[in-house]
Amino acid sequence: MMSDTSCYRVEKDLLGERQVPVVAYYGVQTLRALENFNISGIPISHFPDLVTALAMVKQACARANRDTGKLEPAQAAAIERACDEIIGGELHGEFCVDMIQGGAGTSTNMNANEVIANRALELLGCERGAYEQLHPNIHVNMSQSTNDVYPTALRLAMVFGLRQLGRATCALQKALSAKAVEFQSVLKMGRTQLQDAVPMSLGQEFNAFATTVGEEVARLEDMAALLMEVNLGGTAIGTGLNTEADYRDRAVAHLREISACPLMPAADLVEATSDMGGFVLLSGMLKRTAIKLSKICNDLRLLSSGPHCGFNEINLPQKQPGSSIMPGKVNPVIPEAVNQVAFTVIGNDTAITMAAEAGQLQLNVMEPLIGYKLLESIRYLGAAMESLRIDCVVGITANAAVCRGYLERSVGLVTALNPYLGYGKTSAIAQQALQTGRSVAELVIEEQLMTAEELEQLLRPESMLGPVLGEGKPRLRS
Amino acid sequence: MMSDTSCYRVEKDLLGERQVPVVAYYGVQTLRALENFNISGIPISHFPDLVTALAMVKQACARANRDTGKLEPAQAAAIERACDEIIGGELHGEFCVDMIQGGAGTSTNMNANEVIANRALELLGCERGAYEQLHPNIHVNMSQSTNDVYPTALRLAMVFGLRQLGRATCALQKALSAKAVEFQSVLKMGRTQLQDAVPMSLGQEFNAFATTVGEEVARLEDMAALLMEVNLGGTAIGTGLNTEADYRDRAVAHLREISACPLMPAADLVEATSDMGGFVLLSGMLKRTAIKLSKICNDLRLLSSGPHCGFNEINLPQKQPGSSIMPGKVNPVIPEAVNQVAFTVIGNDTAITMAAEAGQLQLNVMEPLIGYKLLESIRYLGAAMESLRIDCVVGITANAAVCRGYLERSVGLVTALNPYLGYGKTSAIAQQALQTGRSVAELVIEEQLMTAEELEQLLRPESMLGPVLGEGKPRLRS
Amino acid sequence: MMSDTSCYRVEKDLLGERQVPVVAYYGVQTLRALENFNISGIPISHFPDLVTALAMVKQACARANRDTGKLEPAQAAAIERACDEIIGGELHGEFCVDMIQGGAGTSTNMNANEVIANRALELLGCERGAYEQLHPNIHVNMSQSTNDVYPTALRLAMVFGLRQLGRATCALQKALSAKAVEFQSVLKMGRTQLQDAVPMSLGQEFNAFATTVGEEVARLEDMAALLMEVNLGGTAIGTGLNTEADYRDRAVAHLREISACPLMPAADLVEATSDMGGFVLLSGMLKRTAIKLSKICNDLRLLSSGPHCGFNEINLPQKQPGSSIMPGKVNPVIPEAVNQVAFTVIGNDTAITMAAEAGQLQLNVMEPLIGYKLLESIRYLGAAMESLRIDCVVGITANAAVCRGYLERSVGLVTALNPYLGYGKTSAIAQQALQTGRSVAELVIEEQLMTAEELEQLLRPESMLGPVLGEGKPRLRS
Amino acid sequence: MMSDTSCYRVEKDLLGERQVPVVAYYGVQTLRALENFNISGIPISHFPDLVTALAMVKQACARANRDTGKLEPAQAAAIERACDEIIGGELHGEFCVDMIQGGAGTSTNMNANEVIANRALELLGCERGAYEQLHPNIHVNMSQSTNDVYPTALRLAMVFGLRQLGRATCALQKALSAKAVEFQSVLKMGRTQLQDAVPMSLGQEFNAFATTVGEEVARLEDMAALLMEVNLGGTAIGTGLNTEADYRDRAVAHLREISACPLMPAADLVEATSDMGGFVLLSGMLKRTAIKLSKICNDLRLLSSGPHCGFNEINLPQKQPGSSIMPGKVNPVIPEAVNQVAFTVIGNDTAITMAAEAGQLQLNVMEPLIGYKLLESIRYLGAAMESLRIDCVVGITANAAVCRGYLERSVGLVTALNPYLGYGKTSAIAQQALQTGRSVAELVIEEQLMTAEELEQLLRPESMLGPVLGEGKPRLRS
Repeated sequence: MMSDTSCYRVEKDLLGERQVPVVAYYGVQTLRALENFNISGIPISHFPDLVTALAMVKQACARANRDTGKLEPAQAAAIERACDEIIGGELHGEFCVDMIQGGAGTSTNMNANEVIANRALELLGCERGAYEQLHPNIHVNMSQSTNDVYPTALRLAMVFGLRQLGRATCALQKALSAKAVEFQSVLKMGRTQLQDAVPMSLGQEFNAFATTVGEEVARLEDMAALLMEVNLGGTAIGTGLNTEADYRDRAVAHLREISACPLMPAADLVEATSDMGGFVLLSGMLKRTAIKLSKICNDLRLLSSGPHCGFNEINLPQKQPGSSIMPGKVNPVIPEAVNQVAFTVIGNDTAITMAAEAGQLQLNVMEPLIGYKLLESIRYLGAAMESLRIDCVVGITANAAVCRGYLERSVGLVTALNPYLGYGKTSAIAQQALQTGRSVAELVIEEQLMTAEELEQLLRPESMLGPVLGEGKPRLRS
Repeated sequence: MMSDTSCYRVEKDLLGERQVPVVAYYGVQTLRALENFNISGIPISHFPDLVTALAMVKQACARANRDTGKLEPAQAAAIERACDEIIGGELHGEFCVDMIQGGAGTSTNMNANEVIANRALELLGCERGAYEQLHPNIHVNMSQSTNDVYPTALRLAMVFGLRQLGRATCALQKALSAKAVEFQSVLKMGRTQLQDAVPMSLGQEFNAFATTVGEEVARLEDMAALLMEVNLGGTAIGTGLNTEADYRDRAVAHLREISACPLMPAADLVEATSDMGGFVLLSGMLKRTAIKLSKICNDLRLLSSGPHCGFNEINLPQKQPGSSIMPGKVNPVIPEAVNQVAFTVIGNDTAITMAAEAGQLQLNVMEPLIGYKLLESIRYLGAAMESLRIDCVVGITANAAVCRGYLERSVGLVTALNPYLGYGKTSAIAQQALQTGRSVAELVIEEQLMTAEELEQLLRPESMLGPVLGEGKPRLRS
Repeated sequence: MMSDTSCYRVEKDLLGERQVPVVAYYGVQTLRALENFNISGIPISHFPDLVTALAMVKQACARANRDTGKLEPAQAAAIERACDEIIGGELHGEFCVDMIQGGAGTSTNMNANEVIANRALELLGCERGAYEQLHPNIHVNMSQSTNDVYPTALRLAMVFGLRQLGRATCALQKALSAKAVEFQSVLKMGRTQLQDAVPMSLGQEFNAFATTVGEEVARLEDMAALLMEVNLGGTAIGTGLNTEADYRDRAVAHLREISACPLMPAADLVEATSDMGGFVLLSGMLKRTAIKLSKICNDLRLLSSGPHCGFNEINLPQKQPGSSIMPGKVNPVIPEAVNQVAFTVIGNDTAITMAAEAGQLQLNVMEPLIGYKLLESIRYLGAAMESLRIDCVVGITANAAVCRGYLERSVGLVTALNPYLGYGKTSAIAQQALQTGRSVAELVIEEQLMTAEELEQLLRPESMLGPVLGEGKPRLRS
Repeated sequence: MMSDTSCYRVEKDLLGERQVPVVAYYGVQTLRALENFNISGIPISHFPDLVTALAMVKQACARANRDTGKLEPAQAAAIERACDEIIGGELHGEFCVDMIQGGAGTSTNMNANEVIANRALELLGCERGAYEQLHPNIHVNMSQSTNDVYPTALRLAMVFGLRQLGRATCALQKALSAKAVEFQSVLKMGRTQLQDAVPMSLGQEFNAFATTVGEEVARLEDMAALLMEVNLGGTAIGTGLNTEADYRDRAVAHLREISACPLMPAADLVEATSDMGGFVLLSGMLKRTAIKLSKICNDLRLLSSGPHCGFNEINLPQKQPGSSIMPGKVNPVIPEAVNQVAFTVIGNDTAITMAAEAGQLQLNVMEPLIGYKLLESIRYLGAAMESLRIDCVVGITANAAVCRGYLERSVGLVTALNPYLGYGKTSAIAQQALQTGRSVAELVIEEQLMTAEELEQLLRPESMLGPVLGEGKPRLRS
């Protein structure tokens, strides 16, 4: 049929000829991959950082091949321009193979090779598919293997994602710190094991949130640094077969410049080709961040529980009606969503663990899943932090009177008497207070253990917030 | 601006007024949810079974409310028709809230309530948004809460998915069985701990694959049966507040009829509202299936390893060129993708575990993640099985000569001499054979332990495939 | 040195001679295993059920071998008696190899073979080590392989453990049910998403605990049933090499009788030899039980939080002083320990998953870890349930006044007005009540939406506990 | 009864009086903990590093309390001496509470307080239990809370364990490097996706093992450094209640000196009290090490598979007979055990993840499980590395002829022709070679693509091991 020949071009590979849509920039190998892998429905273009990173790697390699004289300058220039377009955000829709794929990323690499080749052909004034002029494997993939190009691109994409995550982390830390300042004079009871413990301020509580989030910034940067070691130039198994003497150093140098990332060639390329250590540790670190976020969200939900039958120490901003049946109910929906992001990241870590352990001999063929799940975790965490900050943290208000009420009713104040009365005596008073409902102060005075004045000075909650026993404190026994 | 009023309608909820696109069937609460939850990018319409299940539940409830006299017949009829359309595949694009959401599914439920209300309004000749005629909460959600509707719909959606998975499982089992028959006379050495063990046939090996896959069918059905117990009618916390006396039984009966699933009301609705046990066990079962698939794929990749430097016992169909640099290389890409599906399912199980454990008091607020990940696991496994069957198993061929060669060279045959020569003597012969490279038979005859005839009869591999020592076997020592 | 020869006997295996302590019932292969595996420090005797199960299997096999005429009756009798002693609890200290071991359980099997052989030799009046009379491999292990004996024994040991766990589960369910009855008239507010929801009784809450625990009994029995299918008789890879025609059926029948468990031979012994499906599903089920226990303990800790700054609805029995610094503090230590057991079981499930997925070809060599972790999970869960029941649940008391107070203060009662006033109006009232602190009733009457009498009847919490709207209820709008 | 009073002493705490064995150094609170927690059967003395660390912390605190004048010098001296004895290895048997415990470590801390108090009393010439002279809580625990003492001791114990693990890691790396040198001239085919890829040397393969193990040394040190930040001085919730102004700095300084570890006080003690981030990341790192070990062991098992029906490239040392039924079979038992250690560590990471996420408000009450599982993982990994090195790696030998044979038969050599003939042409030749069984060289010459001389030069495997195309190589097309 005529329409067939006008709609399709014929391409050929090891397994024979196939019709490729004439409008497609991708080619026969991408076509086969589309047929072979139809599982997640998530194409690689779902992660623009990955597409960009692939183009950067291809561009760097083309430059290195031109430098070593293996690639014609005109061909190199066409490849470079095609890559520039992709880096600029064009043609992403052509990166269509499924994130979950067999072949250790070959389909992703070939998808890039084919799109770049066909766009470069156009730029050279040729037709798409005219591979005798510029071939996806021979020219675009020159001196390369999926096994060095793909992990290098994954690392780069993760570094881009981690930068964004780092910014979101900083912003969340700042928002929590601002709340810590705002709440610094809201006194309350601290709780250990959900039992009344000793006094603190709500500001200290939020400051701890800020601290724990803030710690992630440096740790995430540590992880990004581990990703800077790339195996580009190792080709199939790290021996660098089919590369020129100085190709590797040139390729990495070009990529360093293009990406503005301080990349370094791995010292042992054979090891670097199969090793997933950097990815595993990164996933472990993302899991740590997820756990911290989940703990904070659990706390926010506890502290805002109620309003009548819960802790009710803080109010979260109202984001949507909380129930289809219970009028007026408003739920902590943002922290709840963040909890679920955390669980997803933790689940991803399990998948990554399985995949990393499944590497065999000179390659880890499960790398596509590792890349997919890491990019997903990075993105989810960033989105969750932004949501938590904007839609929740900045709008939190304190119920200072409720907090103060807890403090005043609590037997926990008795701990401050410990250094003066001893553990045994204060234990007895505490038990008595709990059983009778009478206040600690009342009992202490009644038993003539302290005067009312001494007590008042000691039990000022404000003086119980810090690690230091002040100068003016009574020294009854020491 | 005029265009504003023409493009938007104003809707109102607890938190105030908002402009909703006039073309939208969804309403103000869905709008808020779209703003609040923007994480996974996967809308609920990604799982058509879930949308269908929601419509079925809403339809069943409308009928029950009509039966009890709480809902006007005309309103009920409109709701029913709207649901029919959705069940028929229409309006799915309006189910647009993110699969990951806070609020325990309230947004999903309200998305359904609003779409159904607005479509029903249209069918009644009213404008979208004319909720005084038919209200998402008052009429569509009548006698319902997210907390009973949402888990019921999730269960139904999973049952639909499990049916498809069951069919894929059966088909894969049949394909493996067919190969078992095809390979029944291909003799080879079995391997334990990757070391040469004792003879078997390649058919026995594939039959074991078929058996192990086949076992999943009944187990998956067991799990589907556990899902049939629903908490519909329990409303907010299982006490059935705001329902009529016989509403629950009617609603479940209607849903049973609509869905053609043998649903049953849970005996303890309070427990059923917060319990995730059925989901957890289902996930554990899907993990088991994933592990089995992964093991089979590992084996297929091992058995087809090579061709020159590996086991090379079987050939997998060639699906795509295997390398961007190594010409002629073809990889086991389908099993590799299935492995990654298995790891995803295992990772999902971790996420589900975390989410299930996080339930508190009368509800598990992490249910959206549990639902999402289970539906994903079910779909991935089904797709993986189909792919494994169609793109791999049915095209597998055996290298019978290679298999036979292993058998003949192997020292493992010596095990068959065990009952005649004793463990100590045969051990010594085996060691000698390994060290000298001479054959077991040669050594046995040389040491005059058996005659050549006795040996020949004993060491016929064909006689070593079954659990039975035949009648005619020499009884040298017993 | 003389003492050497008197303290040691010399034994020999494939790898040569070694000195074995003369007092040891174990032999040279156990000795090597002790040297090779020194990791967990947990010997197989740590699980008496496993030692018992091994002896039962060996006894059953000896009887089957005697039946088929392969084993001399005198030898069989000696083996049987030795096994009886072990089943009776003797010689367990001789089962000393590490639970974590390479070799797929060969060391455990040989440990059993050697101990039984040496004890049987003694019973026959021979010296330990006189293996020419009765040999660990030739006679005790006759017609057997580690690969069928070891998994069979593991399954049996798990069944024994599951019975005990089942009893503990039943007992816990009963204790929770008793509390449900005790607390049936303690009215409180239910909470969803930690926010005040609608009324319920504390009895309903504990009844849900009882229900959810009770469901595990039948599910655990289902799992035990799956374990009844054994691969005994399959020997090395399931082909039954070196067994007599009717050996398998006889061996299983004897074991059925000895163990009083309804064991059945697996239909496909090749599959059964390498398949870990039953173990994986059991682990998934134990994880489910762990999750349920953890959720209950989380709830108990929440409900008993305070006493002043928490929910304070119930009191857990005081088990020990709660703090080294805070006098009078008492913590929910038992639920906390149970939470940690749950996390251990969940972690074990991950280890089991990894191990199960690592099976290759005709065997899963990671079975020792799978067995170890399953036996540990079963034991821990049983101990945790007993502790939770005895040291916590039976002593729980309710703070009925606190519970009632929550109910009366809560805006959640407004949900009951929904069917009469509509979702929009009740939402507005709820918001108003929350903002002003005035009661729902006051506002409803002030706005003349209902009379005081109507309201009183409607808002009786007692009438809000069940799924049924009673006859006498006002029908304002329906 | 008289014997009672002579065998027991009476001690008293918040909950009343109890009889403590007169021989026990532990006291009433330890007694209660023994009764309350009876789950794992693993006492804290199972981890001598933990007992030592506890004594070091207690000693440091006693010195700091003496410095600030709160503790009498004589009491301080007695406590210090008791701690010295424990650090020296004495009294460890008295540290008997279960590693799994509720109460966030209170029982462990009280166990230490009581043992130290009673031993100090003896040293002061008093009777055990004469707490009015020196009290476990008042004096030994002075200025302390479980919540700062316990995590500090855990961190210290882990640092001690990590040092040992670091040494084991270095030693394993060296052993692998030595093999890399030994095998540097053993040429073989590299494999990707288990398919023949391109040439390499066995030395390169072992060097990659050495590299990947060696990388862990620095990473484990990074983790140890993160543990150096301690919350000592924060007491109950990090506010430092009941401590003197300079106590914290003094206590940390003393502990730094005693332990010879560069400890630092945490900047935010409130955060540090509840944060588990350091533990989570350490666990993630240990998981990474486990994954690497598992991958190496998987490779060793693959490379030594056979001998006849597998890869058979290397031989592992024979450690024990490999089968109870198959004579002469020897299995890779050491790598198999190491795999199982890896799976245990991975499972522990899941348990730690759950426990870390379960922290609430000012404390993580699941810390005992986190500590237990981390100490276990550290120990197991160290033992596994030592076993892998001593019992396996150092004894590995190569089958050089087998390796060479693979190389010569393989089509993979064709990749080296890629730069000269192009991907398309070489693909065709590779396919032809695979189908006909003829050699690549033969086909290339037959088709007159290259001369025999050119080919010979190009296809020397020795020239294919490195990343550099040598000077003298033919430049056919570039």
